[in-house]
Amino acid sequence: MELRSATSEFVDQLKAVLPAAAFAADPAGFLQEPRGRWAGQGVVVSPDSVEEVSALVAACHGACVPVVPYSGGTGLVGGQVSAGGAVPVVLSLGRLGRIRRVYADENVMEVDAGAILADVQQRAADAGRLFPLSLASEGSARIGGLLATNAGGLNVIRYGNARAQCLGLEVVLADGTIWNGMSRLRKDNTGYDLRDLMIGSEGTLGVITGASLRLMPRPAEEATAMFVVPSPAAAVHLLGLAGDVLGETISGFELIHRQGFDFLDEAKLSYHAPFAQTPEWSVLMKVGMGQGQAPEAALTTLFEAAGDLVSDGIIAQSQAQADELWAIREMIPEGNRRIGSVSSHDISVPISAVPDFIDRAPGLLAQIDDFRINCFGHLGDGNLHYNVFPQPGRSRADHEHQRDAVKACVHDLVHEMGGSVSAEHGVGRLKVADLEKYADAAKLAMMRAIKQALDPRGILNPGAVLRG
Amino acid sequence: MELRSATSEFVDQLKAVLPAAAFAADPAGFLQEPRGRWAGQGVVVSPDSVEEVSALVAACHGACVPVVPYSGGTGLVGGQVSAGGAVPVVLSLGRLGRIRRVYADENVMEVDAGAILADVQQRAADAGRLFPLSLASEGSARIGGLLATNAGGLNVIRYGNARAQCLGLEVVLADGTIWNGMSRLRKDNTGYDLRDLMIGSEGTLGVITGASLRLMPRPAEEATAMFVVPSPAAAVHLLGLAGDVLGETISGFELIHRQGFDFLDEAKLSYHAPFAQTPEWSVLMKVGMGQGQAPEAALTTLFEAAGDLVSDGIIAQSQAQADELWAIREMIPEGNRRIGSVSSHDISVPISAVPDFIDRAPGLLAQIDDFRINCFGHLGDGNLHYNVFPQPGRSRADHEHQRDAVKACVHDLVHEMGGSVSAEHGVGRLKVADLEKYADAAKLAMMRAIKQALDPRGILNPGAVLRG
Repeated sequence: MELRSATSEFVDQLKAVLPAAAFAADPAGFLQEPRGRWAGQGVVVSPDSVEEVSALVAACHGACVPVVPYSGGTGLVGGQVSAGGAVPVVLSLGRLGRIRRVYADENVMEVDAGAILADVQQRAADAGRLFPLSLASEGSARIGGLLATNAGGLNVIRYGNARAQCLGLEVVLADGTIWNGMSRLRKDNTGYDLRDLMIGSEGTLGVITGASLRLMPRPAEEATAMFVVPSPAAAVHLLGLAGDVLGETISGFELIHRQGFDFLDEAKLSYHAPFAQTPEWSVLMKVGMGQGQAPEAALTTLFEAAGDLVSDGIIAQSQAQADELWAIREMIPEGNRRIGSVSSHDISVPISAVPDFIDRAPGLLAQIDDFRINCFGHLGDGNLHYNVFPQPGRSRADHEHQRDAVKACVHDLVHEMGGSVSAEHGVGRLKVADLEKYADAAKLAMMRAIKQALDPRGILNPGAVLRG
Repeated sequence: MELRSATSEFVDQLKAVLPAAAFAADPAGFLQEPRGRWAGQGVVVSPDSVEEVSALVAACHGACVPVVPYSGGTGLVGGQVSAGGAVPVVLSLGRLGRIRRVYADENVMEVDAGAILADVQQRAADAGRLFPLSLASEGSARIGGLLATNAGGLNVIRYGNARAQCLGLEVVLADGTIWNGMSRLRKDNTGYDLRDLMIGSEGTLGVITGASLRLMPRPAEEATAMFVVPSPAAAVHLLGLAGDVLGETISGFELIHRQGFDFLDEAKLSYHAPFAQTPEWSVLMKVGMGQGQAPEAALTTLFEAAGDLVSDGIIAQSQAQADELWAIREMIPEGNRRIGSVSSHDISVPISAVPDFIDRAPGLLAQIDDFRINCFGHLGDGNLHYNVFPQPGRSRADHEHQRDAVKACVHDLVHEMGGSVSAEHGVGRLKVADLEKYADAAKLAMMRAIKQALDPRGILNPGAVLRG
């Protein structure tokens, strides 16, 4: 069926079924995305309850008007903006921000989909628990979008991505039906795993309105270390050794290249330099353990066992020192933004293939032009942010004509190595063509069949993930 | 489309595309299931490769002949036997038993779907790693069936169920198409989560032929304790306290009622009695930690912190003593079998609701008749095996006419408390009516739409999960 634009007549129709407050938001902020690649369009509506979301989606379904769910707006692949085609309703989750209930005894928190990640983290902390999802945009990212995109971040090595933090969902389906799947159960094998199908579907199969989240024990003792490694291969071996020594207590294992530090200098972002000489490659790791355990001592054991895998290292002696080290890692994306990348890549390869990837990619890129590369990220997950920059004195505009070639160069190599061209950011609108190019044909056919089955009119976030 | 039986003409057709060895299995063993509730029917075919599975399923698809995938045959809900309707091809995974490759450095093992769980565990151990899935039937259960049913078992509290152990799948779809999703990636957000959709779909959406499994660090130091608790409520509080003290190092947290011990006595199964007097309620727990840690000391800390929550306890002082304690837990299902239950229930409720459930269910059952109840299971997951038995001198046959009422009594209460009527065994053919009765209507409608989209002819395990 052909999609139709949200006309003023249609909006009048909506105003008959939804309260005036649902139409009070200033649309401007909802029609942009952080990378500025798209200027969106749409009529912004902010329902205040799952029933209002249901009424809104049902009306859109009846009129064949597209619905673009908008959560925190922090997504990096354009999943939250519609730049063309029929003018959609932009369904903001901004007023659905309640923490519904905390069950501290069972490590569960029920929330509205519009709850902000930092608030969820704080409420878990208040209850003596941990909500482990953690990423740069946690002050504005909302749970619904984090689940819809299966967000990753810093703690995935230990706790898994957003999907692993979710026990149950409440979802409004394409025709406005409410699916109540707000389970607090740890085990439920009654039927297909629709929860995990909705998670990561980027609003194309349903609109998440509520979630039942899994909390974790809060590590009583934490420690942070930064180790200088001679090579990415040494970093991978160190990761294996760390598993032997530290078991599942590793909460973060980040690889950092010298380019990241150099960009902080160049962008005049101030940080506390951890070593007299900036290391070519370093690993930043965090360990969390229970009461009475000694994570610093365990990191010392690792350092001593590491031999040639580590040439220098710092084990933070205070929380302040640990914070300084993590501030460097968290500042790197801002450094990148200030320099301005030609192309950024959120890629993953099998962990043991990481060194080979880092070895081969620069030579291939050099065939296109002379670039600077900032390679950093979640080595513990095989997930690298592999970002390509102009040399000093040149701008990203100078390389605009090469962007597609750069992207294809990186993505082709990733694909050849059995990797993913979107490790944690999702497909959105940015990588629809990549998905078509690289995905297994049977997978694509199944995805299309499922989309057709659950959203036959194609109103849910059309053009995201799959071509509309 | 109407399903047709696998006639001798159809088998001749299959013999033209598959080697003779695929038809060599003695069918007898494949047409039964462990609880003896169904006598199956079908033509057993045992392909030796994913290509042979593909050719077989394509032929069945062309002829509209049902395919019933058969893995280890240990499932307890009849998912592996077709007792009526068109005679199916029973697709045995028995010859697809290879361990394809171990990537110890990245904690990954690639296997054929017919690999036996105990073999996978052993190969992981040989590589210094742990494959944590562990259950009573591990000597014969195969990976394909374990994934198709999202099996649980003893270590779920720490490591998750079968789904959590899987990074990627190779699946033959309804028309014979091979989906190669054998990813070794920790993070991949390119499109819908078809892996988790296949896992737990019990062979109704595709036939799993291979899997890429996640391995874990092997805990260097383990300890086991059995604590006597005054009540299930105390056991739940002990679980919360254990999380505070021991973090994520708890590998098992099992609740045991005195009835389990009494049945071992009655069934003349010998075991080493841990206490002078058999406790009414006890908790069996295992803790696993890294090198240089002291799990026994941590269990002692827990015992001391527990106060009134624990009235007596044993911390195993040797591996032999730990094995003796776990042998009791592992023998309980055999004790149950020898006594003969009226009805068994694999249920879960929110963890904090467990005491209330255990409190209320006996009174409701007593309105039906005078029963003995053996309640035990994975308290750490809110998963109880709540099994109802005749009083001494009476047999299950005496209660045959009450079985449905007993089941409905237990399941109605579980449903009222937000629980699941199949926590870890799946739906199979046994619980199709329960799923229809208790599932959210929107969930059922989505499941049917997905089944129709991915298997429009309905040839894959018809009658399992959803009514055929």
